[in-house]
Amino acid sequence: MSENQIDSLIQLLAKLPGLGPRSARRAVLYLLKRRESLLAPLTRALEDAAANLTTCSTCGNIDTRDPCAVCTHPKRSDALICVVEDVADLWALERTPAFSGKFHVLGGTLSALDGIGPDDLNIDGLLGRARQDVVQEVILATNATVDGQTTAHYIAERLSDCNVKVSGLAHGVPIGGELDYLDEGTLSAALKARHSL
Amino acid sequence: MSENQIDSLIQLLAKLPGLGPRSARRAVLYLLKRRESLLAPLTRALEDAAANLTTCSTCGNIDTRDPCAVCTHPKRSDALICVVEDVADLWALERTPAFSGKFHVLGGTLSALDGIGPDDLNIDGLLGRARQDVVQEVILATNATVDGQTTAHYIAERLSDCNVKVSGLAHGVPIGGELDYLDEGTLSAALKARHSL
Repeated sequence: MSENQIDSLIQLLAKLPGLGPRSARRAVLYLLKRRESLLAPLTRALEDAAANLTTCSTCGNIDTRDPCAVCTHPKRSDALICVVEDVADLWALERTPAFSGKFHVLGGTLSALDGIGPDDLNIDGLLGRARQDVVQEVILATNATVDGQTTAHYIAERLSDCNVKVSGLAHGVPIGGELDYLDEGTLSAALKARHSL
Repeated sequence: MSENQIDSLIQLLAKLPGLGPRSARRAVLYLLKRRESLLAPLTRALEDAAANLTTCSTCGNIDTRDPCAVCTHPKRSDALICVVEDVADLWALERTPAFSGKFHVLGGTLSALDGIGPDDLNIDGLLGRARQDVVQEVILATNATVDGQTTAHYIAERLSDCNVKVSGLAHGVPIGGELDYLDEGTLSAALKARHSL
């Protein structure tokens, strides 16, 4: 491995989440064996992504246009804003057809340990949107982690003077989940929120 | 995730070994958040790799020139050829300073299950090199798997009419290895090849 060019490619790939130096090396060899079928299309796709993808100035989603396809979709309700931590969470919710409102990406969670305060998140943008008359409800869909829930409570407080309903996702047994494998927190949440059949 | 452009990038990244659809999605978001520090350099490195890297026609190594830096190195012995399955194995051996001969990359192993026969591997090239007067020894450094060892035995037989010594890597306890965690095959090989202290 005397070549700096290969080394630098390996080092760059190794920075991706989920890849380390060894798997990056494997990936580079895999790419070099598939120049036409994978290396060339991947390079083009990365170029296209760099050239065309942008962050939506309204909601924080990543798309080829600003405002993004979700924000400009004619059939999506303006009355409902779902607040998520990250674009990955937005994409996860988009995979279900259950939600047809708009989104707002915070860009992270409050975290005392990592020194992330309210000014580092896109909270002011959310307050501005929530004050519009058309908005009726804000769903706080941050992760069910300590940081995520802390952030949700903080935002709920900040939203209290806006004239909107504030809600959160239900906690309980995941569909397909087996009780034996669930933690006590989830089970006690599912018990508390039990409903009559 | 309505955008085909993002989707196609995710699908291409998911083809890399070690990445699945979910980790590819994470990697794409990671890249889009680090346009200048990672996305742009990675794209350039991939372009450079596609444009400049080639397979050495002598040994099968991947390098920016043909014959490669290992084959043309003035201080490496021509008398010794180390036969490996893949370029990754060549790189692994290059990480130790223990070997200063030349290499020969087979491009895989014989495999009845996968339908890989002698003609699919670069064996003829090896025989041609082994017949040169300067070559004194061929080290068969295929993996210690069934397919790797089968391939080594087959090549040793083909090399029998060339005037070269044929050798294989030693089997035994890896440096730093704990006996409790080693399989019986390795332990019995280490016992058989024991040496006096």
